[in-house]
Amino acid sequence: MTETKNHVPAPANALSAASDVGPDVELDVGPDLGLDFEGWACPVPLRETPTVVMGHGGGGAMSAELVEHLFLPAYGSAAASELGDSAVLTVGDGTRLAFSTDSFVVKPMFFPGGSIGDLAVNGTVNDLAMSGAVPLFLSCAFILQEGTALSELGRIAQDMGAAARAAGVQLVTGDTKVVDSGSGDGVYVNTSGIGVIPDGVDIGPHRAGPGDAVLISGDIGVHGIAVMSCREGLEFGTTVESDTAALHGLVAAMIATGAGIHVLRDPTRGGVAASLNEIATASGVGIELVERDLPVPETVRDACSLLGLDPLQVANEGKLVAVVPADSADRILAALTAHPLGRGARRIGTCVPGHPGMVVARTGLGGSRVVGLPVGEQLPRIC
Amino acid sequence: MTETKNHVPAPANALSAASDVGPDVELDVGPDLGLDFEGWACPVPLRETPTVVMGHGGGGAMSAELVEHLFLPAYGSAAASELGDSAVLTVGDGTRLAFSTDSFVVKPMFFPGGSIGDLAVNGTVNDLAMSGAVPLFLSCAFILQEGTALSELGRIAQDMGAAARAAGVQLVTGDTKVVDSGSGDGVYVNTSGIGVIPDGVDIGPHRAGPGDAVLISGDIGVHGIAVMSCREGLEFGTTVESDTAALHGLVAAMIATGAGIHVLRDPTRGGVAASLNEIATASGVGIELVERDLPVPETVRDACSLLGLDPLQVANEGKLVAVVPADSADRILAALTAHPLGRGARRIGTCVPGHPGMVVARTGLGGSRVVGLPVGEQLPRIC
Repeated sequence: MTETKNHVPAPANALSAASDVGPDVELDVGPDLGLDFEGWACPVPLRETPTVVMGHGGGGAMSAELVEHLFLPAYGSAAASELGDSAVLTVGDGTRLAFSTDSFVVKPMFFPGGSIGDLAVNGTVNDLAMSGAVPLFLSCAFILQEGTALSELGRIAQDMGAAARAAGVQLVTGDTKVVDSGSGDGVYVNTSGIGVIPDGVDIGPHRAGPGDAVLISGDIGVHGIAVMSCREGLEFGTTVESDTAALHGLVAAMIATGAGIHVLRDPTRGGVAASLNEIATASGVGIELVERDLPVPETVRDACSLLGLDPLQVANEGKLVAVVPADSADRILAALTAHPLGRGARRIGTCVPGHPGMVVARTGLGGSRVVGLPVGEQLPRIC
Repeated sequence: MTETKNHVPAPANALSAASDVGPDVELDVGPDLGLDFEGWACPVPLRETPTVVMGHGGGGAMSAELVEHLFLPAYGSAAASELGDSAVLTVGDGTRLAFSTDSFVVKPMFFPGGSIGDLAVNGTVNDLAMSGAVPLFLSCAFILQEGTALSELGRIAQDMGAAARAAGVQLVTGDTKVVDSGSGDGVYVNTSGIGVIPDGVDIGPHRAGPGDAVLISGDIGVHGIAVMSCREGLEFGTTVESDTAALHGLVAAMIATGAGIHVLRDPTRGGVAASLNEIATASGVGIELVERDLPVPETVRDACSLLGLDPLQVANEGKLVAVVPADSADRILAALTAHPLGRGARRIGTCVPGHPGMVVARTGLGGSRVVGLPVGEQLPRIC
């Protein structure tokens, strides 16, 4: 976490440039963060690989490269310019829809605090909620490996039904495919979702501005560590449970304050680090975190320490990052902490005009470190 | 195709009852089709299997059972009552959306006339078009096996882009997951789609009525045979090419006639047999086909004969079945045959008040046979 390396950030295109970043880079930049990158050398060439590697699915820099260098050029004019986790669409006479898709391949399929079924519903509900939408309808497509126990599939489906009822969304259309035993891997689930964005709500990753406060709704890193704790060969003996939860009620409570909200993200794959890097890039701002304000539970800290992981890069499934105007921060925080899913909310940082596209954490020792977009996959298949 | 078996149809619940049907059943029922099933015995018990088998993904009776007996009970009140290939949703101030999802796991990924990329776009476009919707937006979620050549993924993505441009739909949101080498199987693609149903259009599987004409837009069985023709171990030496195509333009031409259209279906997995059985069940009508009027190309007929398949059960990816009022049939047929994708259109049958929920074909020899819902999977993974 504290290795020192040279690094060239590229503010104009940080998603791809961030692929050059090692796990973390410590910089002694002083309190004003007036970084000067003139003359730095790039230590790592862009990855060139002829085949798909695990990192392409990790939600970090390699995933972003795949979108930018393979999918977008191939789709051409058929693709929306962003092709992100969710899209905002206008239909009919101005109804704004949020539309999102996510596939779930987590192993094991059942883990402390949840299952692939919970994740499949809550994950897509949350992608919709992050644009301020009221989630309404989900599709549900299974790819099943021949030989999977129907009792396991039934448990997963029951978890999906329970999660959907809890979230107030309806499963309206589905599809099931079966692949040979030996192909596939138990159960894969894709959910896509539609929500309606209320009039007057304008939340998007490009809306962060200098001076905005950066909030987190609670403890970070819990889901990733929960899944790892029960994964074969990685027993920590912890009792961490996944934080999987549907966050649209929490978002509704924030919106109901009437205070402005600029950006919302659920920091799943790639963790808080990935979400903040994406916001910094999309909005062209720098983000400055105060490391000691990050809510990292002791069990997560211990597990990360053991494994050499950065809690900022570990997946969450029931947390959100909010970027709000500074003068809204207190009202939003009050709304968050009054809600069962936001009790641990706190402010963790600020958007700054310097180092646009870059996230920097002030360390406990008075220094700063660059919080890079994770390169590939830290935890294989955690969501 | 001409085995004789006893069979108990259950009009009130033919999706599950049809699971008892063998490949086909020949009945000597006379021209009035006044079938009498009193006292028949059920020859095959409902399947009881503790694990997922290939047939659960075949789009036939086993797929329907999985929905009815596993997914719907598990989802409970969170599920829409039908959970079909696509759903019709009302949002905002009355805008009607069609919403559909489909996963594609076809092997090989490239075949004569197309690829998994073409199928993934056209398949979901067609599911939307079958409710009369104008397809607008697609999501695209990949599950990739580690080690898949990026060049292959690029070809698939290019096919998707080309198909989306041809269909005039936009790829607006995406997701990519990677699974271990040894899991997964190359490339799986899920597309979900949103379309808008124009005012005044009311097309749905429950709308068929006695006397309605049953039309097909062209040759049947072509896609399934094309995929089999190049699948390892099943070389026929034919030059059949997949008929994969986006059909929403054809549907628009039909709607533009102003003639009524009651039902549209694209007969993919399970073929024309599955589509007609589903319509018969949903509408509570019988369907009488005239076997000699079915457009089966000679190559398809030969391949089916060799393999003991019924062309009615072989998948299509660029054809539609239409049920229209008898007095609309000529106008609709004229619109179909005037369109490049409907040149081979013809009338193949009629909806009748007798034997509700059941499809019967008049054979060339003057007899009739029940055209059952396929039980499981005839061709492994053809779409």
